[in-house]
Amino acid sequence: MASALVYNGDFSAAKSPASTSRVASVYSEVQNSRLDHSLPLPSVLKSSFKVVHGPPSSAAGNPDEIAKLFPGLFGQPSAMLVPGESSEFPSGLKLKIGVVLSGGQAPGGHNVISGIFDYLQDRCKGSTVYGFRGGPAGIMKCKYVVLTPEFIYPYRNQGGFDMICSGRDKIETPEQFKQAQETALKLDLDGLVVIGGDDSNTNACLLAENFRSKNMKTRVIGCPKTIDGDLKCKEVPASFGFDTACKIYSEMIGNVMIDARSTGKYYHFVRLMGRAASHITLECALQTHPNITLIGEEVATKKETLKNVSDYIADVICKRGELGYNYGVILIPEGLIDFIPEVQHLIAELNEILAQEVVDEGGLWKKKLNEQSLKLFDLLPPAIQEQLMLERDPHGNVQVAKIETEKMFIQMVETELEHRKQKGAYKGHFKGQSHFFGYEGRCGLPSNFDATYCYALGYGAGALLHCGKTGLISSVGNLAAPVEEWTVGGTALTSLMDVERRHGKFKPVIKKAMVELDGAPFKKFASLREEWAINNRYISPGPIQFIGPVADKVNHTLLLELGAQG
Amino acid sequence: MASALVYNGDFSAAKSPASTSRVASVYSEVQNSRLDHSLPLPSVLKSSFKVVHGPPSSAAGNPDEIAKLFPGLFGQPSAMLVPGESSEFPSGLKLKIGVVLSGGQAPGGHNVISGIFDYLQDRCKGSTVYGFRGGPAGIMKCKYVVLTPEFIYPYRNQGGFDMICSGRDKIETPEQFKQAQETALKLDLDGLVVIGGDDSNTNACLLAENFRSKNMKTRVIGCPKTIDGDLKCKEVPASFGFDTACKIYSEMIGNVMIDARSTGKYYHFVRLMGRAASHITLECALQTHPNITLIGEEVATKKETLKNVSDYIADVICKRGELGYNYGVILIPEGLIDFIPEVQHLIAELNEILAQEVVDEGGLWKKKLNEQSLKLFDLLPPAIQEQLMLERDPHGNVQVAKIETEKMFIQMVETELEHRKQKGAYKGHFKGQSHFFGYEGRCGLPSNFDATYCYALGYGAGALLHCGKTGLISSVGNLAAPVEEWTVGGTALTSLMDVERRHGKFKPVIKKAMVELDGAPFKKFASLREEWAINNRYISPGPIQFIGPVADKVNHTLLLELGAQG
Repeated sequence: MASALVYNGDFSAAKSPASTSRVASVYSEVQNSRLDHSLPLPSVLKSSFKVVHGPPSSAAGNPDEIAKLFPGLFGQPSAMLVPGESSEFPSGLKLKIGVVLSGGQAPGGHNVISGIFDYLQDRCKGSTVYGFRGGPAGIMKCKYVVLTPEFIYPYRNQGGFDMICSGRDKIETPEQFKQAQETALKLDLDGLVVIGGDDSNTNACLLAENFRSKNMKTRVIGCPKTIDGDLKCKEVPASFGFDTACKIYSEMIGNVMIDARSTGKYYHFVRLMGRAASHITLECALQTHPNITLIGEEVATKKETLKNVSDYIADVICKRGELGYNYGVILIPEGLIDFIPEVQHLIAELNEILAQEVVDEGGLWKKKLNEQSLKLFDLLPPAIQEQLMLERDPHGNVQVAKIETEKMFIQMVETELEHRKQKGAYKGHFKGQSHFFGYEGRCGLPSNFDATYCYALGYGAGALLHCGKTGLISSVGNLAAPVEEWTVGGTALTSLMDVERRHGKFKPVIKKAMVELDGAPFKKFASLREEWAINNRYISPGPIQFIGPVADKVNHTLLLELGAQG
Repeated sequence: MASALVYNGDFSAAKSPASTSRVASVYSEVQNSRLDHSLPLPSVLKSSFKVVHGPPSSAAGNPDEIAKLFPGLFGQPSAMLVPGESSEFPSGLKLKIGVVLSGGQAPGGHNVISGIFDYLQDRCKGSTVYGFRGGPAGIMKCKYVVLTPEFIYPYRNQGGFDMICSGRDKIETPEQFKQAQETALKLDLDGLVVIGGDDSNTNACLLAENFRSKNMKTRVIGCPKTIDGDLKCKEVPASFGFDTACKIYSEMIGNVMIDARSTGKYYHFVRLMGRAASHITLECALQTHPNITLIGEEVATKKETLKNVSDYIADVICKRGELGYNYGVILIPEGLIDFIPEVQHLIAELNEILAQEVVDEGGLWKKKLNEQSLKLFDLLPPAIQEQLMLERDPHGNVQVAKIETEKMFIQMVETELEHRKQKGAYKGHFKGQSHFFGYEGRCGLPSNFDATYCYALGYGAGALLHCGKTGLISSVGNLAAPVEEWTVGGTALTSLMDVERRHGKFKPVIKKAMVELDGAPFKKFASLREEWAINNRYISPGPIQFIGPVADKVNHTLLLELGAQG
């Protein structure tokens, strides 16, 4: 079967003990050294435990609607594992569990799978784990691989999702739910673990509800994955992958900073992945102390215009010029322009106009723009205008993500500084260098934190399925404490949900956790940014270390949100 | 003095023992952990040594011309330090030594300086080291800082050149030589260490000759610096910074590879720094095993056209498509298009035409291109055509380095694959993602190899000045062996030189060491690339580790060139 080649990576044949020698030949020393890295487990997972339930749960918003959408699951209490003996975890049980990776890569996904696998090996000997291939489509098409110790071994503590790969399909339509049911019945699944972001966990909950409504035995547990860091709440303090991705980006930013300071003649405009929320950019700022950091949520709250933002950049550059600094580093979240109201309007109008295909070379079509949008359009550098006009997705919409915001700002700032220079208000030299750090961070070797956190998430998910839970998201807490003291349990997915009205219907959604302007990470940043802007307080975090005294350091955002020192 | 702010970075006030606490506040844990990393010295440098001289040297080419250009220095033997006692290294001597960083950043520069400083502290107590600021201009303007243990400490094992910064000026004209003489006299310099690439070391030799011709006591020693890896020869087996930069790029490439394999739908086109030679790209290929690697020297030797190269890429993509792989990773050296003869011709013609400013909107100017150049120009994607027309340097020349070759190939390959698809010869899906890895690698924390190598280069340079040598380049050899067994000495800079005819005059040049197609690194790559193209043999080197069993691994290129296993 040719398609198997696509999914298997280098380990398609790695099912025999001979695979270890094979690993050695295609792995770097660092990859190899990580294979046998031993992962500490929270104490509670190391001996016998029982479940303590919380009070009945509600929803993040519109509980009545959520209750209607999830009649079987709504109101479930949280489940916390605590030391003790309990018949809830029957011994001798052999479970059949499926696992699926959904959406974009995040470092640590493989460890969630090994956590699930090891739990079942440790506590439900003789169980079977099915890895669905290529994301949710693998469930619908019943494409899977049976996971064995030999198959899993080469992926332990490794980055990427290549063990079973991922996909962006959703299980949404009645036929799709039917396909999922058929797979669950065919494999006689006791449970399914969905490793994904906000959408995928919403989907997991719908699947749990669906299976329950059909009186099927298949339980569904979610796990919080996304480098963007926007799937989190009190009970689920972090999504995995964020820690590693931010450290990789910060390594590069720190290097560029030292270069900027050494060379003394470039402003580096760094665009960072993170489409919706600006958590990554904020965390990288806390790690590296750039001169300027743009946070989408702040720009939106203050209803900034594009001109405001580029003027702010120009202001800082002018001030620095007066001090003799003609260099600097500026962080820009990938989704920034989505946060600017006037840009949203312009794009909406462009989508309309482009749909009617009345774009003429002479530019008469521009008369269809309203006054403000026209002004904004004319302000944009030609290359960006072109990107706005040319790049459209299959639905005919402008592809905002493809706009090279960092280059746009370089050109806008350059123009502004030229004006100021002519007026005598700026005497420095400006040269911009653009960077986009994105794909580099999604598949790095997981940091010790992500490796350990993911393993606990998976091990905990195994326990939740063992005691028959469904519709929960695996929740590992108390993360500022030593691993031994981490808490392990599950939180009702419905309690994270609100509804959105789409096409006249209520749709359940797990709301993305955006950067909160009164949250500790943003407040710390806001209290320091003026100092960082003018005085150079660059910090270069260097490459992630896996051993030694610095290897277990956790990201600032998490620590600050937990009230610990970031 | 305002300009001091520009050069001093965060440590302008770091001259008191209190500086360590200051360091802690602006350094990351990894940076801090590197400060006290102890550096092993080659055994010969640990006790008393004497000098053994080689036979008289010649030149890399045109020895007669080199002899004329360097009447005072030509023919100097190499100097090797060996254990023993000798009056050549008088005790009690107090030297005044200047040091300068020249050209682009390379990880390890700070360690060369600390090596020089420590040598003088250890063996010539009471000596003074002047750090010239901002590169060779610092010599000419006599801008310097007196280096102290407290001043140097925060830069030990750190990346960047920010201790004294660098610059790209050259000491060329008679007045500039006079300025350098005046500085040397004013500071009563016994010696000067020039840390730089091929041009800077040529300059160092001219300076050495000039000082000697004026009967000045100031000696000049060079040190081989460049991430590009193109300053090397038998006696100087490596330029510093190459090891670290390649490891940083390879970390990113490896991450992108795992992402490509996990996602299964993108071809990543990665452009890598390295303007003249393709050593960086070759080394990164040996570290990561990409599907396609373009080597400029091979493209030039085979007289490839741009179309040949993009067809080669398309061929591999088609073959992979047949196997079900619609993803891959392609490495492209920054300087590639400089190696393509037809592109050189086109650019030469464009420079002519643009100089005359007859470019009309209608495109009539294109008639001035010869047939082949016109055909090539029309083959290029519009964005690249524009870059060729718009971006000119102050001399009116096209800025080849600014051309985004990776995007150019994405578009050319896309067009070619579209043709093939229409003819039924390609059935896969192609989506390109572009990357440029450059600045990230120039200022990273030096790898253990670069940290140790640089320290030995500097320590050795101190010894060469101590025994009165001039016109040599610090040479540390036997690098495949343990550090204790490394050899230390100096090689006549004139022996590395050839002449080039410029403006009717002979100019001495140290020839850039290009990738040799019959050298061991290229041969190893060539023997494996077909395997890498079709089967996925990706290796993800991961982040540089500073401690543990993998920390001391050296790059493949060096080991292969030294006949050791790469």
